[in-house]
Amino acid sequence: MLLVDKEPLLRKNLLQTIRSPHDLRGLELPDLEDLAAELRETIITTIADTGGHLAPSLGVVELTLALHYVFDTPNDKLIWDVGHQAYAHKLLTGRREQFCTLRQHGGLSGFPKRSESEFDTIETGHSSTSLSFGLGLATARRIQKKQGKVVAVIGDGSMTAGMAFEGLNHAGDLDENLIVILNDNEMSISENVGALSSFMSRKLTGKTIRRLRDHVEERLLALSTVGENILNLLRKSEESMKAFFTPGMLFEAFKFKYVGPISGHELEDLIVTLTNVRDHNHGPVLVHVITTKGKGYPHAEENPGSYHGVGPFDIVSGKPKPSLSAPPSYTKVFGETLCRIASEDSRVVGITAAMPDGTGLSSFCTSHCERFFDVGIAEQHGLTFAAGLALDGMRPCFAVYSSFMQRALDQLIHDVCLPNLPVTIALDRSGVVGADGPTHHGVFDLAYLRFIPNLTVMMPKDENELQHMLYTALNLGSPAVLRYPRGSGEGVLLDSDLRMLPSGEGELLREGTDLLLLPAGNRVYPALRAAELLAEKGVSVAVINPRFLKPLDASLICSWASQTGVVLTVEDGCALGGFGSAVMQLLQEYGVHVPVKTLGYGDAFVEQGPQSILWQLAGLDANGIAGSAISFLEKGRVSKNTCFGQV
Amino acid sequence: MLLVDKEPLLRKNLLQTIRSPHDLRGLELPDLEDLAAELRETIITTIADTGGHLAPSLGVVELTLALHYVFDTPNDKLIWDVGHQAYAHKLLTGRREQFCTLRQHGGLSGFPKRSESEFDTIETGHSSTSLSFGLGLATARRIQKKQGKVVAVIGDGSMTAGMAFEGLNHAGDLDENLIVILNDNEMSISENVGALSSFMSRKLTGKTIRRLRDHVEERLLALSTVGENILNLLRKSEESMKAFFTPGMLFEAFKFKYVGPISGHELEDLIVTLTNVRDHNHGPVLVHVITTKGKGYPHAEENPGSYHGVGPFDIVSGKPKPSLSAPPSYTKVFGETLCRIASEDSRVVGITAAMPDGTGLSSFCTSHCERFFDVGIAEQHGLTFAAGLALDGMRPCFAVYSSFMQRALDQLIHDVCLPNLPVTIALDRSGVVGADGPTHHGVFDLAYLRFIPNLTVMMPKDENELQHMLYTALNLGSPAVLRYPRGSGEGVLLDSDLRMLPSGEGELLREGTDLLLLPAGNRVYPALRAAELLAEKGVSVAVINPRFLKPLDASLICSWASQTGVVLTVEDGCALGGFGSAVMQLLQEYGVHVPVKTLGYGDAFVEQGPQSILWQLAGLDANGIAGSAISFLEKGRVSKNTCFGQV
Repeated sequence: MLLVDKEPLLRKNLLQTIRSPHDLRGLELPDLEDLAAELRETIITTIADTGGHLAPSLGVVELTLALHYVFDTPNDKLIWDVGHQAYAHKLLTGRREQFCTLRQHGGLSGFPKRSESEFDTIETGHSSTSLSFGLGLATARRIQKKQGKVVAVIGDGSMTAGMAFEGLNHAGDLDENLIVILNDNEMSISENVGALSSFMSRKLTGKTIRRLRDHVEERLLALSTVGENILNLLRKSEESMKAFFTPGMLFEAFKFKYVGPISGHELEDLIVTLTNVRDHNHGPVLVHVITTKGKGYPHAEENPGSYHGVGPFDIVSGKPKPSLSAPPSYTKVFGETLCRIASEDSRVVGITAAMPDGTGLSSFCTSHCERFFDVGIAEQHGLTFAAGLALDGMRPCFAVYSSFMQRALDQLIHDVCLPNLPVTIALDRSGVVGADGPTHHGVFDLAYLRFIPNLTVMMPKDENELQHMLYTALNLGSPAVLRYPRGSGEGVLLDSDLRMLPSGEGELLREGTDLLLLPAGNRVYPALRAAELLAEKGVSVAVINPRFLKPLDASLICSWASQTGVVLTVEDGCALGGFGSAVMQLLQEYGVHVPVKTLGYGDAFVEQGPQSILWQLAGLDANGIAGSAISFLEKGRVSKNTCFGQV
Repeated sequence: MLLVDKEPLLRKNLLQTIRSPHDLRGLELPDLEDLAAELRETIITTIADTGGHLAPSLGVVELTLALHYVFDTPNDKLIWDVGHQAYAHKLLTGRREQFCTLRQHGGLSGFPKRSESEFDTIETGHSSTSLSFGLGLATARRIQKKQGKVVAVIGDGSMTAGMAFEGLNHAGDLDENLIVILNDNEMSISENVGALSSFMSRKLTGKTIRRLRDHVEERLLALSTVGENILNLLRKSEESMKAFFTPGMLFEAFKFKYVGPISGHELEDLIVTLTNVRDHNHGPVLVHVITTKGKGYPHAEENPGSYHGVGPFDIVSGKPKPSLSAPPSYTKVFGETLCRIASEDSRVVGITAAMPDGTGLSSFCTSHCERFFDVGIAEQHGLTFAAGLALDGMRPCFAVYSSFMQRALDQLIHDVCLPNLPVTIALDRSGVVGADGPTHHGVFDLAYLRFIPNLTVMMPKDENELQHMLYTALNLGSPAVLRYPRGSGEGVLLDSDLRMLPSGEGELLREGTDLLLLPAGNRVYPALRAAELLAEKGVSVAVINPRFLKPLDASLICSWASQTGVVLTVEDGCALGGFGSAVMQLLQEYGVHVPVKTLGYGDAFVEQGPQSILWQLAGLDANGIAGSAISFLEKGRVSKNTCFGQV
């Protein structure tokens, strides 16, 4: 069913009549079905232009229609876990005309956002928060005797995170009227992992079935009232055991009423079931809905992993639209380098939390499958699992996005750095990431890493330095974080031999007398270009690539700070508490009392937009750096003439 | 069975012959039983002097003996989850003579610690990490074809944390030979919460049983081979349903082989069972052991919550030894103030993650039970649950220890501060906590909080300021953290009326011309005393209580920093990235280029010891502050005469 093949003339153009879900509720089933087709077409054609989370949103078109049809949104509260599946929701809630601005700078967010619509219950982006939010909302409504339902839609992948389990466990205890829709497509982003997942999908192995049968036999034999006939039945077939052990049983053990499984693409069934559930009002209910990720777009149905998040693509062929040829990404160089190192060092292990493609570990997974582990959406466990591997001689590398690493701060402090274990964290997507916006920008990591004892933190200026740093991290014998950005490298040549970089040594890239520029990681090249611009204006600038945030190169930095007398730091991260702040603290410690200005993001969440625009807006590109340098030097000169250092 | 009543003369004094678990393995059962009694006596008499985690350690005496008897430790690896139950383990592994130094400064740690013994597999202190560590270790051994078992001992309370679920889920998937001992005493620190817990303890309600029965009926009816006789049996009795739904079934669904439940106080049973399990070698096994927390000391058995962690106590009466009368603790004032505010403000909700007593919420739990929530050991869920409550008009207060808050950084950023929700975090045990040591010190919070947009962070100088700050936080309408230390307040009078403190306004406590002292929170009074000491030496010191870490009082701080020309900051936290670092960044931003020195903990984990000693060692008491002030001023004078600001 390739919906986009249909002639637009055959359409009723219903979608343009839907200004809010209220307009849905008078429609008949055939109209709703046509509307589903229109929603799919709009999503496919728009995402083909803008890029976005195509497959997740296509999978829940009918579910979204049914939810808004049955529930009294926005009085009833709808929470989309992660939120990357909310495109149909956006189209039905008054944002059709802006939909073409999706994920653009200044446009609609790719995730729910309260400032966009009263139908967006909460900002999202990270997984597995919906049960906790929903339980809080349902509890608040009960305490305040307010009307209105609370519905949380969560994918089976999100269920593998500990946070979802914590919410499930508490919800079963509280007995609030929370409705959970389990959107089960048997995968999260790539294929699901974990025991829970095979239980839910009823792919139980013979061994597990036999164990469960033995267990039930033992329990039944302990009951005098049970006759042999039941036991015989149980012994006879694995099928009957499978019938016993269903996903429903698991959720019922957690005190949820379980409904399903039902098809997520049959509107009538969905509406009937959701209406019953809406009127239940006796504690938590879980509705198990089976969906097909990418539904309605054959390329995405066949290959939902690749169409989870896509750039612009050609609708007919499904192929990415040609983009300007760019150097290989940091992610790609990381993945290839890890494979290379692991081929020579049998201690190296690769770990991902449900992101083998995104983190560049796919090729490692193929070439070193015995030493590759996908732990599911479980950053906490993933890092401590790495610590356990390191305890017994391995050299694990946990590849994770910066903003998701926020989930494992305690494990980094308590399980890795306190015991001082040789775990490497490859911190991808550090700095601003672009269209995914504030929930995904990795702008806080320099601030939340630099205070942790025993930790080494490295920031490569380009992909060649990245490969040496990865080699260094894996051979350091203590905890290390390697922080690199989303997107293309600088296109530099890669050295053929890998080498250890001396810990805590920066490199002087340019000498100068008027100002010391200290750029971190991916800001080194823009800073060098800024130095050129400044040289043209007669300003002589020294540039140091610090390489290490921790430990900082005290003698190199202090010496050039003293010589130039003015320091400007630049980082693709929040200014508060980050690299620049660390430099200030170093200079004070060494008694170098010079003016320091930090360039980074201000004290606010950074909005979505292309990285180049976000860097430009924050003054982190070459022009911005040069401009800041000039005004800072100017201010210093004025201050010196009047009362420098006084407010 | 009050073991300490026995005459020491009747003892065989076996314990002193056990230098390592190797010496255990030749003993007969009666000797092992005597040894259990000796271990209990030693633990009770020692903890009565030193204080410590009494009840958890008494509950696992036989289990510890059996584990070391059956397994070939330290080649086989034993991991104690949390680690507060490892006293018998310490006594059996060569640390009997040092046991009297437990939890003292320079003495044995109250938790496992690798530098103490090769039998301590990993440093611990935080809960629910053992499955992840154990799985990592077991995997490393398989990959490297190394011999040796891996055994993780985890309490039922620790099982409520999401991290344990993540580990369980991955373990079932990997099929490594991991042995998990579920130490089930039906409580963690206080009574357990959550659906899982009632499932494990088989306290299923009639409603849950009925649901499960309906579910099974439905499944069975779908099978043509099933006769009515089975259904009739199921319908007949709740008991037969209960027999079906056992803890074993849950763990078997996670692909663990389940053994038990067995008594954790019958040595012979334990030894037989553990021996069988040791020789299993076919994937993960869970042994369900039922223990009594506080076993063998009647006071602790009766009231295990109160004897979870104790100070010195009288053995016969069980009562705490009289200590010097001290002012009420910050925790107590917090708890009472929250009750008071909640009585007048129906929006206020109290939330704890399994620590109602420790966080001072017990009285709130009694007086406002409808608005009190214990979410279990689930900091991630707890904070986002609070965010959900705040979304619909409530004003939740999540009371949590600073070091455990590390578990919920992402939830604070993503779920509370990004949507800018009015959630208050009462951050107890900030700064050094004393005898619990490095895993429990709350020294990183100022550094990991100050960069988060939309967040207000307050630090009271005393318990009177605490109550105003709590009132302020709950009425601010945006996210707020209130950071206060373990232990007694300053003994100041409490104002009868609560008031809003103006956001971001500090208070000038003392004027001076030579130096600005900027102490954070509980360092204000020591700084004032230091100012007195300095005045005696002719140094004129200004002292500002900043009250807010975020936002800082820019005009007050910059103005006095300019006037005095030298700044000394003091904080009960890590120096890197914390309050002092924030002050440096503020001064640079406002162009105040003066020498700043930060007093705080250096770049290493802080060891255990009384708070007063730790403060003294770090130079954070009045004498230390005064001494640092003098040497800093002296250095500045010398530098100024030579080449101030040069390295």
